[in-house]
Amino acid sequence: MTGRFITLEGGEGAGKSTVLATLREALEQAGVDVVVTREPGATKAGEAIRHIVLHPDFHGLSGETELLLMFAARAQLVHERIRPALAAGQWVLSDRYTDASYAYQGGGRGQPVERIADLERWATGGLRPDLTLLLDVPVEQGLARIGTRSDGADRIERERVDFFERVRAAYRARAEGDPARFRIVDASRPLADVLADVRRIAAEFVADRTERAR
Amino acid sequence: MTGRFITLEGGEGAGKSTVLATLREALEQAGVDVVVTREPGATKAGEAIRHIVLHPDFHGLSGETELLLMFAARAQLVHERIRPALAAGQWVLSDRYTDASYAYQGGGRGQPVERIADLERWATGGLRPDLTLLLDVPVEQGLARIGTRSDGADRIERERVDFFERVRAAYRARAEGDPARFRIVDASRPLADVLADVRRIAAEFVADRTERAR
Repeated sequence: MTGRFITLEGGEGAGKSTVLATLREALEQAGVDVVVTREPGATKAGEAIRHIVLHPDFHGLSGETELLLMFAARAQLVHERIRPALAAGQWVLSDRYTDASYAYQGGGRGQPVERIADLERWATGGLRPDLTLLLDVPVEQGLARIGTRSDGADRIERERVDFFERVRAAYRARAEGDPARFRIVDASRPLADVLADVRRIAAEFVADRTERAR
Repeated sequence: MTGRFITLEGGEGAGKSTVLATLREALEQAGVDVVVTREPGATKAGEAIRHIVLHPDFHGLSGETELLLMFAARAQLVHERIRPALAAGQWVLSDRYTDASYAYQGGGRGQPVERIADLERWATGGLRPDLTLLLDVPVEQGLARIGTRSDGADRIERERVDFFERVRAAYRARAEGDPARFRIVDASRPLADVLADVRRIAAEFVADRTERAR
């Protein structure tokens, strides 16, 4: 029996790290063998690519370059980590996956959706998650959580808010277009409520898979 | 007046470095302002990508990852170096360009031609060279020049020869399919003869452009 593939998505300050740890714990308590990965990264090449994409030294990356690098890291992750784990019956829990490219490189940077869809088809061999949790939080609230001022008149700060608004809108559109795969978690609430939701979603998903496997 | 874009292609041991220096010299003597680039590389991101693609530490790169990385480096090169130079009236001389992906990732690694053509269209904005010199040399002769034994029974060595045979065949097919852009230079001959050819091709190309510009 092959494993299941679960992804966690969301913008800045949505509480992704805490939710990831809780999700992992909930799955392991249910007896699932979990492999955790992150994007970009989780392979030697992927971590080197992560450095290029995230380090300020590489300012001036074109939108096309950024998109290609994200899919290069993703192609390697699928090839080297995700497919082998799933084939071995392990479950894979990834901190971001292809939906993040639709949100950040698509919504945020304006790369065409058809281009992202083409890359998705061949770079991942069409591998889609079985379940995706989207942590949704208003941009101002998320940025406030990570300590970023967003109310100044500074052009870059204003642009950043616009950018993250587009990212959020693209994420929500993805989720609304595929309700069978997505669970939207309202991450504007107190953390305890968010984590309770996450545990419930994990328990239901595990129960459903176990049911089907019978 | 925008500049001209010239690329130099060829397999291992074809004498590309020497030819590149001669080509540059010939163009400069004709009064052309030349910018030299190389692939992958010639930008900060491109050189970091070059490290991933070429360093033995990153063995196990999937074919898809390698192709995406080559085009990520290329997209950045076009965006940051080639288009600005051409717009400023400089001529660009690149040590390898998109034809190398058709040869190495396509012919060598078996990535589909349509996939490479798609990436070419959007990652470079369809920027094609005005002139491409293909240095063609039999694989055994090229490998002998760079000091690689290829007559052993070792599986890897045999595979390498097959790989380079496919690269050479793909390069030749590209050149034969686009004779207006390509000049095939027989690089199996003594270096002096090869360089004389290269100088003649450069002189003719410069004369032709000057003629047209009148």
